[in-house]
Amino acid sequence: MWVDAPVEVLREVRSGSTVPDDFDAFWADTIASARDAGGEVRLSPVDCGLRSIDVFDLEYPGFAGQPVRAWLRMPRERSAALPAVVQFTGYGAGRGAAIDDLLLPSAGFAQLVMDTRGQGDGGTIDPGFGTAPSGFLTRGITHPETYYYRRVYADAVRAVDALRGIDGVDPERVAVAGNSQGGALAIAAGVLAGGVRAVLAQAPFLSDLPRAVGITDRHPYREIADLLGRARHLEPTVQATLAYVDTVNLATRATAPAWFSAGLMDDITPPSTVFAAHNAWAGERHIVTWPFNGHDAGGSADLAGALRVLRRVLGRP
Amino acid sequence: MWVDAPVEVLREVRSGSTVPDDFDAFWADTIASARDAGGEVRLSPVDCGLRSIDVFDLEYPGFAGQPVRAWLRMPRERSAALPAVVQFTGYGAGRGAAIDDLLLPSAGFAQLVMDTRGQGDGGTIDPGFGTAPSGFLTRGITHPETYYYRRVYADAVRAVDALRGIDGVDPERVAVAGNSQGGALAIAAGVLAGGVRAVLAQAPFLSDLPRAVGITDRHPYREIADLLGRARHLEPTVQATLAYVDTVNLATRATAPAWFSAGLMDDITPPSTVFAAHNAWAGERHIVTWPFNGHDAGGSADLAGALRVLRRVLGRP
Amino acid sequence: MWVDAPVEVLREVRSGSTVPDDFDAFWADTIASARDAGGEVRLSPVDCGLRSIDVFDLEYPGFAGQPVRAWLRMPRERSAALPAVVQFTGYGAGRGAAIDDLLLPSAGFAQLVMDTRGQGDGGTIDPGFGTAPSGFLTRGITHPETYYYRRVYADAVRAVDALRGIDGVDPERVAVAGNSQGGALAIAAGVLAGGVRAVLAQAPFLSDLPRAVGITDRHPYREIADLLGRARHLEPTVQATLAYVDTVNLATRATAPAWFSAGLMDDITPPSTVFAAHNAWAGERHIVTWPFNGHDAGGSADLAGALRVLRRVLGRP
Amino acid sequence: MWVDAPVEVLREVRSGSTVPDDFDAFWADTIASARDAGGEVRLSPVDCGLRSIDVFDLEYPGFAGQPVRAWLRMPRERSAALPAVVQFTGYGAGRGAAIDDLLLPSAGFAQLVMDTRGQGDGGTIDPGFGTAPSGFLTRGITHPETYYYRRVYADAVRAVDALRGIDGVDPERVAVAGNSQGGALAIAAGVLAGGVRAVLAQAPFLSDLPRAVGITDRHPYREIADLLGRARHLEPTVQATLAYVDTVNLATRATAPAWFSAGLMDDITPPSTVFAAHNAWAGERHIVTWPFNGHDAGGSADLAGALRVLRRVLGRP
Amino acid sequence: MWVDAPVEVLREVRSGSTVPDDFDAFWADTIASARDAGGEVRLSPVDCGLRSIDVFDLEYPGFAGQPVRAWLRMPRERSAALPAVVQFTGYGAGRGAAIDDLLLPSAGFAQLVMDTRGQGDGGTIDPGFGTAPSGFLTRGITHPETYYYRRVYADAVRAVDALRGIDGVDPERVAVAGNSQGGALAIAAGVLAGGVRAVLAQAPFLSDLPRAVGITDRHPYREIADLLGRARHLEPTVQATLAYVDTVNLATRATAPAWFSAGLMDDITPPSTVFAAHNAWAGERHIVTWPFNGHDAGGSADLAGALRVLRRVLGRP
Amino acid sequence: MWVDAPVEVLREVRSGSTVPDDFDAFWADTIASARDAGGEVRLSPVDCGLRSIDVFDLEYPGFAGQPVRAWLRMPRERSAALPAVVQFTGYGAGRGAAIDDLLLPSAGFAQLVMDTRGQGDGGTIDPGFGTAPSGFLTRGITHPETYYYRRVYADAVRAVDALRGIDGVDPERVAVAGNSQGGALAIAAGVLAGGVRAVLAQAPFLSDLPRAVGITDRHPYREIADLLGRARHLEPTVQATLAYVDTVNLATRATAPAWFSAGLMDDITPPSTVFAAHNAWAGERHIVTWPFNGHDAGGSADLAGALRVLRRVLGRP
Repeated sequence: MWVDAPVEVLREVRSGSTVPDDFDAFWADTIASARDAGGEVRLSPVDCGLRSIDVFDLEYPGFAGQPVRAWLRMPRERSAALPAVVQFTGYGAGRGAAIDDLLLPSAGFAQLVMDTRGQGDGGTIDPGFGTAPSGFLTRGITHPETYYYRRVYADAVRAVDALRGIDGVDPERVAVAGNSQGGALAIAAGVLAGGVRAVLAQAPFLSDLPRAVGITDRHPYREIADLLGRARHLEPTVQATLAYVDTVNLATRATAPAWFSAGLMDDITPPSTVFAAHNAWAGERHIVTWPFNGHDAGGSADLAGALRVLRRVLGRP
Repeated sequence: MWVDAPVEVLREVRSGSTVPDDFDAFWADTIASARDAGGEVRLSPVDCGLRSIDVFDLEYPGFAGQPVRAWLRMPRERSAALPAVVQFTGYGAGRGAAIDDLLLPSAGFAQLVMDTRGQGDGGTIDPGFGTAPSGFLTRGITHPETYYYRRVYADAVRAVDALRGIDGVDPERVAVAGNSQGGALAIAAGVLAGGVRAVLAQAPFLSDLPRAVGITDRHPYREIADLLGRARHLEPTVQATLAYVDTVNLATRATAPAWFSAGLMDDITPPSTVFAAHNAWAGERHIVTWPFNGHDAGGSADLAGALRVLRRVLGRP
Repeated sequence: MWVDAPVEVLREVRSGSTVPDDFDAFWADTIASARDAGGEVRLSPVDCGLRSIDVFDLEYPGFAGQPVRAWLRMPRERSAALPAVVQFTGYGAGRGAAIDDLLLPSAGFAQLVMDTRGQGDGGTIDPGFGTAPSGFLTRGITHPETYYYRRVYADAVRAVDALRGIDGVDPERVAVAGNSQGGALAIAAGVLAGGVRAVLAQAPFLSDLPRAVGITDRHPYREIADLLGRARHLEPTVQATLAYVDTVNLATRATAPAWFSAGLMDDITPPSTVFAAHNAWAGERHIVTWPFNGHDAGGSADLAGALRVLRRVLGRP
Repeated sequence: MWVDAPVEVLREVRSGSTVPDDFDAFWADTIASARDAGGEVRLSPVDCGLRSIDVFDLEYPGFAGQPVRAWLRMPRERSAALPAVVQFTGYGAGRGAAIDDLLLPSAGFAQLVMDTRGQGDGGTIDPGFGTAPSGFLTRGITHPETYYYRRVYADAVRAVDALRGIDGVDPERVAVAGNSQGGALAIAAGVLAGGVRAVLAQAPFLSDLPRAVGITDRHPYREIADLLGRARHLEPTVQATLAYVDTVNLATRATAPAWFSAGLMDDITPPSTVFAAHNAWAGERHIVTWPFNGHDAGGSADLAGALRVLRRVLGRP
Repeated sequence: MWVDAPVEVLREVRSGSTVPDDFDAFWADTIASARDAGGEVRLSPVDCGLRSIDVFDLEYPGFAGQPVRAWLRMPRERSAALPAVVQFTGYGAGRGAAIDDLLLPSAGFAQLVMDTRGQGDGGTIDPGFGTAPSGFLTRGITHPETYYYRRVYADAVRAVDALRGIDGVDPERVAVAGNSQGGALAIAAGVLAGGVRAVLAQAPFLSDLPRAVGITDRHPYREIADLLGRARHLEPTVQATLAYVDTVNLATRATAPAWFSAGLMDDITPPSTVFAAHNAWAGERHIVTWPFNGHDAGGSADLAGALRVLRRVLGRP
Repeated sequence: MWVDAPVEVLREVRSGSTVPDDFDAFWADTIASARDAGGEVRLSPVDCGLRSIDVFDLEYPGFAGQPVRAWLRMPRERSAALPAVVQFTGYGAGRGAAIDDLLLPSAGFAQLVMDTRGQGDGGTIDPGFGTAPSGFLTRGITHPETYYYRRVYADAVRAVDALRGIDGVDPERVAVAGNSQGGALAIAAGVLAGGVRAVLAQAPFLSDLPRAVGITDRHPYREIADLLGRARHLEPTVQATLAYVDTVNLATRATAPAWFSAGLMDDITPPSTVFAAHNAWAGERHIVTWPFNGHDAGGSADLAGALRVLRRVLGRP
């Protein structure tokens, strides 16, 4: 059922999160030091039985130069430098299998699917932390510097950097896309990497966190409430940290155009939180709503729309 | 949690369903009259922005010659006649979007994804019935002749026929695959179409129905219990109809090799029902179990395994 | 718990559904063609062991003259022509058993309990469709002409016609009554049959559909959301169809007096949707609310109230 | 789903409850002292608008002579002395409304529907206890003498006595019937009142209590587990009390024939507990099972069957 | 998730409950007659293996002089007369074990933990009623005089009286405290006993009952809705009774200072009901809110705060 | 409801987990290197307003010498060296508040309550990991060396060491106790620390892990299934790691006497897993079962029993 206010009201929603004073410096430093850490990009071809797509197991230096895995998929037939998309995935999923997510390379785009550190089964370590099925939302949350999503946002920016450096990729024609957690990462990379041409965020997570943590019982937002219900004194600390990763704050620094999508029955990332990010977006912005969908939002219809946007903004592959 | 007996016990499970006396005649007549009904296969290219795959909106004559929609996807680069796979989908899903399910064509196979009549959003009508999100399991269940799955199984066989007739497809190298409802349809087509080279059934539905309808509360099997809880006198009628579509009975007529997959935490198609079908399979048979998965079974790992099987059985594309 | 606004607010609720331009013509044609289709009323006495009530298995021509079953119950002792009530039942129930619902005949009324086509166990076929436990709300929903409830509303009107033609029934003294789906059918028959003397609707279904489909997760309204969550493009089509059966639109054509009942904890047909129908009712109208009841509303207290209304409006039997 | 063992196994189920040494004396004393307490039966006609049935608000002396309410319904047309049925109702329901349960009087039987003390809305007080929606199962449970169901069973026996004394009732032709809690009361009255001609128990409650309290999480059995989970030391006390009201122990003293009914998906009174009562029944016994029903068991089909039994055993009214 | 309005709104909440005309007389009479009933306080030392605390099984005359059990815990080392606290416990819990709740005596306070009659395992009888796990909220609810909480509130006042009479307790330095049901009892005793120095109520129950019974589905408030959903005619009676025990009405007579605590995710005693009591409090008042906690509110942090309050208000032990 | 086999069967349960070849060396090395790491024990008195108990914020060197926090509580009156207990707490709880858990010091025992690293609100860091509400069960699970519970078990042993070194504690009279996760830690410390005089484990966690992870859907065991459902290839790795911490394997090395407690309705640590640990215990062993309790098992009754055991085994304080 509908979990939030009518669309007319959603269009006016503003988050109560405020941009920390050192927000720009925090991210500038984070990104700069990740870039300064250097490190190499390594590519290993993967034989997974595909004929029209080359799949590479890619490793690139992410936060603090730590190795991050990704799938790089390229159309086997390629001549001119390709337009390219960095794709981010949902909470807990990691980069998936080598044979997943073939849409963008089949459409002629170079595609990098980042393995979210510590999540899923893709082999990217969050150093010091083991593999886990959940709990990422509170990892290191007591300081912005140690917060898990600081590292992941840096990984996301560096994924853009890595893709731009791949032979056969046109570094001027790069977009970012993702759903749920992947939508938040697309926003982060779209705002922080510089020069990204389009941001596609389906039901983005990590938006309007001061409200999000209290208006739903569903995981993963609930991880915050579960933590603060046990460690009551941490609330100001946690809220202070979250302000650095909240997409509503990143949105105020946006210059690229963005396309959002929201399901009006979404009780995982409620539509009012998605609208809060959209409404704060400083660049050109678009949003589509799906009245009878939950966290799946527009599903493949969103993907088809994304393909149209990418072809228009990046040029046909 | 584990919903059924340990694997050692599952390997010995036998269904209580028995093959109706006129079972072979019933299906022979059904298939023959579907084939006799004739009708044309129509192909319309779809421009969905892909570059390495040609997608066609295909319409072919199914049960009683009624039009059935499908996606035909072919590698754009193709020279010799292609090995091919008919793919069936889960309950309620229909054929999905034109841009979904790109694995097989990316791997060089011709692929036909059948639109399950009346389900999803693909446009295939079950004549006389409208679009619905559920309820298929009881449609016309009072007679084997009017039962919904009689029509769908016939559609499935005719999908094999249609794919074999496509230019550029090698009619001798056709396999069938699917998960859940799609697994049952793969079994049906694999047994009834003739000459199918491999059957891949992930967590197949419609297996060991006399038990399946009572050992889980989850939909869709629950539709049967809900019906019989209201219309108590229908039980013998319903059981008699179900015997015609139960995969455990079809399995006794199998000649092709089959690969099954089961999640030991699957409370939608409990593993004992999958094993009942596997254990009854008269051809070469394989089964893989996933102890910590539910109805998703092996997920992409099953797909990767399927790709290896297909390349071995059908030959590399 | 209370699922909706306080009663003061409910009294002002207005549905956003609007009457289609051809609404009157649509229903006039539907009813006229059902009446033109002719067909006979057949009565078979049923021996179910009652002594003060005669029960007949009645078949009458409904939509398009298709046979509809009903129970006709008459007090065994009867002299003058009887006042009469057509009674409609809840979703999925059908007409029930011959021995159910003995209140009205015991009170001296002739009673016809219509078997809702395809539902329950009463034997009425929705031609082309089999018996089902659910899914009626979406059957044929892509066009007003093919929509299931068009047929059922026509059946309901023809039930009034049939009852008026029964020997021993006073055709001038007929009322209609029902709960949930039966309440919607009572409204439909009360508005469309002509000359109905009273409409009794307990927690009526199919009211204020544009809101109803989104403000509850409970079945059966959820069937609409489930459909539109899968077949996203159908929303305008579905909304257009639903406008023809929405009781809030029928209510604007009402001339008979109506008695509504609503449970303030009803999450199946939320009270705001019942009030929307009541508030739109063009005839004399009454509503009673039950603060601590759900979809059962006033239960037997509503029935006792209905009996008082019927004796007053139709005259004592 | 099926909640218990297969029917073959159920047929062999034996309860672990054992008959207390003073069981017969306990009940003999209880019934004798109730009868000795005397008290009058009072009848007030109720005008609820029925024409073929006379309804009386009846008050009779129950346990310790305390006043118990009931509905007495009689066919208005009556000549010879009528066969009669005492009907008992489910947990929390009370006697219902005057206009409920018209089947038996419409079939020509005199019917007394006992108001279960303290339950529902019928006005019967359990002296010292107020009205409540639940909690009866543990009321006074620390001694057999103070246990709630001792009083209710005595009320049930006295209801048979009261009905036998009504003018126009044939005291030799009395049966007892009920579902759930009403089934347990029918068993109690059928065993303890003497001379009852038939016992009809649909999904009877209070059967095989040592197992029942642990094999379901559903209310009302769960009230026992909730109590003993808090008051751990009470377990032997509670088990000792329950042995006096367990139908499996009463069953060993039965002489009348009994008809049981069980739903195989019943998680409120699981079928193994119903079978335990049936299997222990010392008189002629019958049981019917409904594989796809829960606590509703056979619903109206059970009622229709009951009517056939009553007409055969008591003679046609 | 947050179950109620934002804190700014909660600060303005007013209950719709109104103080009955004879409210003061009702309680004055109740307390006076309890006190007049006399009866002795009996103390038995309990050897539970503690060394720094003396535990006594205390029995004192409560409502109508009926015996009520309690634990009296005293620091073993004691010289001057001690400040003291009467502590009340949550729904169904009773006084707990002799070794529970050692905080206050370890901090130097004399502590009396009242056994809530009929609840838990502590041995206090509600005469005429047996032990039960639930159902207290409706016991005797049809008249203020027979209502269960009248007796319990009187017991609570008499617990203060009893503690004041204990050797070694300073009768001028007594406070009351409790959580949930215990919070309501603390309010009752704090208002009605006279001279209580501080009231500590964590997530108090029985507050703003006209709203509380409808805004949550959770037990125990739900017991009221369950009753009124069955016994519809009782609503005015029940509401009239509840007004006598509603803490919002008691609050208007308060003179002692009070400290409230509320969890903003509390769906058992929703924060708006706690605020309604706080906002009506006629004495000095304080409230602390816990945004990410449910019915546990501040847990041990509330206890630590209570200790600070007690040391300040009563003086250091 | 009962979640497992009857007690007779439970008494024979044997886990399928097998002791790894290097099990003894693994733990010997782990403990030895923790002890070798040295580090100081620091004590800071905490003023929390208690009078009969001294509370200290204790920090001691745990795994790899990393600082672990604990509460040390001592009776204020103490002369001879005290018997002492290390107490461990449940999953996610940490050491709780300074004012919690006053039973043992009130009974004259020195008590150390270990703060489980990273859990709760007590300030103990699992270096490199932040505070979290859950997810501990999978932290570092890919190698026995990196597994979270290796570190925690070492902390537990070192807690025993730390307590033994406290002035006023008799190092020869130390026992360990805990419930749920705390029960597993008590077992670990009791087996690995050497010289522990008694082990008290209420509903211990981490027992019979090969079965536990599949026979319940409840957290925290479910964290394993959730991980392996996503990272399917990790199963052998994870099972290999778990064998090192499984209490059934530790139990085979036990020499101290142990007291277990199990709730037969416990679906969090099902009774069969508790029995598996008990049945494997190489020392003297006891178990008590609570038929109507879940994970709370005997609650305060278990604590009272524990006190009796401690006084007997360690001598009266």
